[in-house]
Amino acid sequence: MRALQLSEKGLEFQSSLELAPPPGLVRVRVSQAGICETDLQLVQGYMGFQGILGHEFVGVAEEGKHSGQRVAGEINCPCGECDFCRRGLGNHCPTRTVLGILNHHGAFADFVWLPEANLHPVPDSVEDDRAIFVEPLAAAFQIPAQLDLTQYRDVIVLGDGRLGNLCAQVLALHDRNPLIVGKHAEKLARLKSMGLQTAMLDEMTETSVADLVVDCTGSPTGLPTACRLVRPRGTIVLKTTTADEGGPNLAPIVIDEITLVGSRCGPFPAAIEALAADQIDVLPLITSRFPLEQGVEAFDVAQAKDQM
Amino acid sequence: MRALQLSEKGLEFQSSLELAPPPGLVRVRVSQAGICETDLQLVQGYMGFQGILGHEFVGVAEEGKHSGQRVAGEINCPCGECDFCRRGLGNHCPTRTVLGILNHHGAFADFVWLPEANLHPVPDSVEDDRAIFVEPLAAAFQIPAQLDLTQYRDVIVLGDGRLGNLCAQVLALHDRNPLIVGKHAEKLARLKSMGLQTAMLDEMTETSVADLVVDCTGSPTGLPTACRLVRPRGTIVLKTTTADEGGPNLAPIVIDEITLVGSRCGPFPAAIEALAADQIDVLPLITSRFPLEQGVEAFDVAQAKDQM
Repeated sequence: MRALQLSEKGLEFQSSLELAPPPGLVRVRVSQAGICETDLQLVQGYMGFQGILGHEFVGVAEEGKHSGQRVAGEINCPCGECDFCRRGLGNHCPTRTVLGILNHHGAFADFVWLPEANLHPVPDSVEDDRAIFVEPLAAAFQIPAQLDLTQYRDVIVLGDGRLGNLCAQVLALHDRNPLIVGKHAEKLARLKSMGLQTAMLDEMTETSVADLVVDCTGSPTGLPTACRLVRPRGTIVLKTTTADEGGPNLAPIVIDEITLVGSRCGPFPAAIEALAADQIDVLPLITSRFPLEQGVEAFDVAQAKDQM
Repeated sequence: MRALQLSEKGLEFQSSLELAPPPGLVRVRVSQAGICETDLQLVQGYMGFQGILGHEFVGVAEEGKHSGQRVAGEINCPCGECDFCRRGLGNHCPTRTVLGILNHHGAFADFVWLPEANLHPVPDSVEDDRAIFVEPLAAAFQIPAQLDLTQYRDVIVLGDGRLGNLCAQVLALHDRNPLIVGKHAEKLARLKSMGLQTAMLDEMTETSVADLVVDCTGSPTGLPTACRLVRPRGTIVLKTTTADEGGPNLAPIVIDEITLVGSRCGPFPAAIEALAADQIDVLPLITSRFPLEQGVEAFDVAQAKDQM
């Protein structure tokens, strides 16, 4: 099959990669897939991953109980037997594989293999262009899954990229009226046209103005900025992972008694429901399209600041 | 008066420093004071503080309603009028001064000046040697003030220094049976003789073993170790502040969805009550005594690993 593979030689398109079907997993023919910030970080060495990249996709199941159905797929493949799995925390199973991220070939290929339990049928009303956003939108819905949002009055989303956009929409859906702070006038204008409040980062001269800050910058500078904007005793949701060696000095977290909440993958059903109910606007987030053969070029383009 | 002063020239003993009494504050004659890890960090440049050091003390009030009484003093001096102060969060008042740490001369001197509201009378049963621990013990009592400890089964205190010792005792008082993990056999032996569980750090080869880890290491390596020891979805209380520029990569916080809770100063009444009830054993934490004139030497000694 065709596939976009990351190895010691870097990212390469393979026109005829032969893979033995992993036992016990369901084969899914990939229809479309999305490149996210994590993919760009993986290419930079994050997680030390080698294999087929890609963890945001929609496809058609070719086996199992969903055979013939359009599906989105959860990316964490847990063992199903450990303490975490038994407590319903399979996303944190210590021996899990993660699609296109950890010991599991991803979706930038003709086919992808996942456990049947990972597959969620996508209603016809959610076309492929929108279904590829189920995975990142689920990550945004992880915020209300982790926090009681009614506790927070003034909410800032830091970062005007794709995840920031989705998190802002989810927070707006929960009546939090977030302020999105970013560096890109065009991306902020798009959010403003959706009725959201926006501000350029360099105009945010005030400090300690938010009860909750969600860091979606994907940059090591995000957390220090979040610490500046959050009020003492406030909460920062950290969505950013980077390949960088170090991080910021954390003295502000202690001095201001900030609570920092790491947040990763979220509930697929909530994301699919919100897309089916047309509550989240994702189509403007597609800024380029490439056939799989041009995947390496797609990664180059995805690095550009005007791309979502 | 005599004072131990930090300036661009470093730490110096001053035999006759003249200070104008700050208006509105109560003069306290200092009886004893303690050197803590924060003091050592301040000398290294943390907070950029210049002035008289010292924020853990017991003394005798010479003015105001507590005149003639033995008192311990809260170190944050809030404005009393801002939003934070009105909400009872004066410790986070943005224009506060902090005794011996921020724009406020400290207690390594014959006299110290504080707002009357900061002073807490110390019962006769709590002699000076124990009363000097009210401030750091209050910081340990901030943990149960911030967290519902009944949520955490397996609890680790990282760091066998003075704050780690006090935090471990407070957690034991709350029936958490903490495991104290440290690098110093002698300090751990002291904790073990008090009936607490201990382990040498290099023997802790397991990962993901605790629901709650309290980082009292005072070292930038503390948080990465805490991330290793805490279970996914677990909580880390961060007590460590350092003068270092950078910190660790925070990807584990996101991947394991860890909650990191910054924790600083705590409730004086809880600390005084616990000392009066003889629930916390602090006398073994005094490892050296110096007259104020030998304060610079005391700081040198305090850096040694066998000192508390």
